[in-house]
Amino acid sequence: MQVGIVGLGLIGGSLGLDLKAQGRLVWGLSRSRATCELAVNMGAVDIAVTELLDVPQLEQTQVIFVCTPIAQVIPTVQLLAKYVGAHTVITDVASVKGAIVQSAQGIYPRFIGSHPMAGTEVQGIKGAQRDLFVDRPCVVCPADDIDAVDIVRSLWNSLGMKVYDCDPHTHDQAVAWISHLPVMLGASLIHACHQQRDAKVQYFAQKLASSGFRDTTRVGGGNPELGRLMAEFNCEALQIALSQYQAEISLLAQMINQENWDAVQNYLENAQQWRSLFV
Amino acid sequence: MQVGIVGLGLIGGSLGLDLKAQGRLVWGLSRSRATCELAVNMGAVDIAVTELLDVPQLEQTQVIFVCTPIAQVIPTVQLLAKYVGAHTVITDVASVKGAIVQSAQGIYPRFIGSHPMAGTEVQGIKGAQRDLFVDRPCVVCPADDIDAVDIVRSLWNSLGMKVYDCDPHTHDQAVAWISHLPVMLGASLIHACHQQRDAKVQYFAQKLASSGFRDTTRVGGGNPELGRLMAEFNCEALQIALSQYQAEISLLAQMINQENWDAVQNYLENAQQWRSLFV
Repeated sequence: MQVGIVGLGLIGGSLGLDLKAQGRLVWGLSRSRATCELAVNMGAVDIAVTELLDVPQLEQTQVIFVCTPIAQVIPTVQLLAKYVGAHTVITDVASVKGAIVQSAQGIYPRFIGSHPMAGTEVQGIKGAQRDLFVDRPCVVCPADDIDAVDIVRSLWNSLGMKVYDCDPHTHDQAVAWISHLPVMLGASLIHACHQQRDAKVQYFAQKLASSGFRDTTRVGGGNPELGRLMAEFNCEALQIALSQYQAEISLLAQMINQENWDAVQNYLENAQQWRSLFV
Repeated sequence: MQVGIVGLGLIGGSLGLDLKAQGRLVWGLSRSRATCELAVNMGAVDIAVTELLDVPQLEQTQVIFVCTPIAQVIPTVQLLAKYVGAHTVITDVASVKGAIVQSAQGIYPRFIGSHPMAGTEVQGIKGAQRDLFVDRPCVVCPADDIDAVDIVRSLWNSLGMKVYDCDPHTHDQAVAWISHLPVMLGASLIHACHQQRDAKVQYFAQKLASSGFRDTTRVGGGNPELGRLMAEFNCEALQIALSQYQAEISLLAQMINQENWDAVQNYLENAQQWRSLFV
């Protein structure tokens, strides 16, 4: 099976490493010549090009993964639709689906929306690694083209992912809570700590910050462009989640202001218990 | 050197493993007979007892680490003060210092306040491990008894910690920002996600939660008793930090509500840059 990857970053590069290890022929497309060279040298792709029309036997590609930033997915599908063979299946990896799936299927009927939930704190192909996807969840959006859905689902399964069928709207609401909201609150934590104006306290805050601060702010201090696009393309669901979160933190602050320590402990006990439902 | 550890949990147990590996004679005190047996079997202590007066040659102990929950530190120092030799140095590991150091020194002049910043997500001696403290920051509060301060500082240094001199009030303000605040906002994130009432969205939120949610909520979903005591014993500093944090998240929510994506990106770029000052 010949497979294509458009966008050779962390996800695209990691995907290439795994797909090549399965013995597939993998081509890559990147705007950057340096990235193309690195991708070939790392063994992430068999061939990498900066222009789609330089892909040898493009029309024989069976599946193309669009691994660009969110805002480039639709333009990329428009470009691909002009040149790929009619049997080619196109999928993507973007962290929003509502803004993409219906439009992309309007442009190219054999487009299937995917979202592999794999780490995002590293940027670029240099962070690419084998087995990034193993045991991680992946959404595949159901579509009329059952055959295309099966091909995409099987590929993610073959990389070790737990695949879930989920419609775009439900997906976007779910990830607003557990993926996009954590980015925003981690970023605000960094801002709050940095805005603290006592120089001595600031010095020790920076020196004493340890694993708790590091983990809580990991995604909040991640790729700013990705965070911006999450907010922009999943705006409504994120607004609802943020608003509910602000109500929750106000409630906890109120318990602390009232020095109601039993209520605080009960709140933290519930948090500990409920966390296990998610992770 | 004979060393004592009161409270055989994650910190006390890990401390024992490292101190014994240095060839020191280590006794442990725990209310639980089962914990005492486990501590001996793990090699965390040479001997463990449930009653202080059962410690052999107690008066020859040079340093005692009080590793109990915050609320038990002062009662423990009161007990120890009655029976230890006059040269014995007592220190603690509690995550607040203002509520402890001055009172403890009033009871026992050779008390020195410490706070080793080591992981807290695991509870109990079963999580104890060698080298837990390596490369982590540790505060030691300056005191009139320079000799006692030196002994405590040297011991933490010998475990691989980066030791900082910091007065109790400044310590408490600094950790409110980078340690206690992250607990509260992580807990509120779990609450917000769990309060979300659409059953289908809830199902997928739980299934799709991945490393971002796990890391952001790690300390927020940790030991509830510890979190409650942080709030209770560092109330004023935490209230200030929470209030500033609420203002920060409101600012970001406002940018998102106004769909001001450049401002959101700029906010996230600052977060990414400033995070590197802390971790």
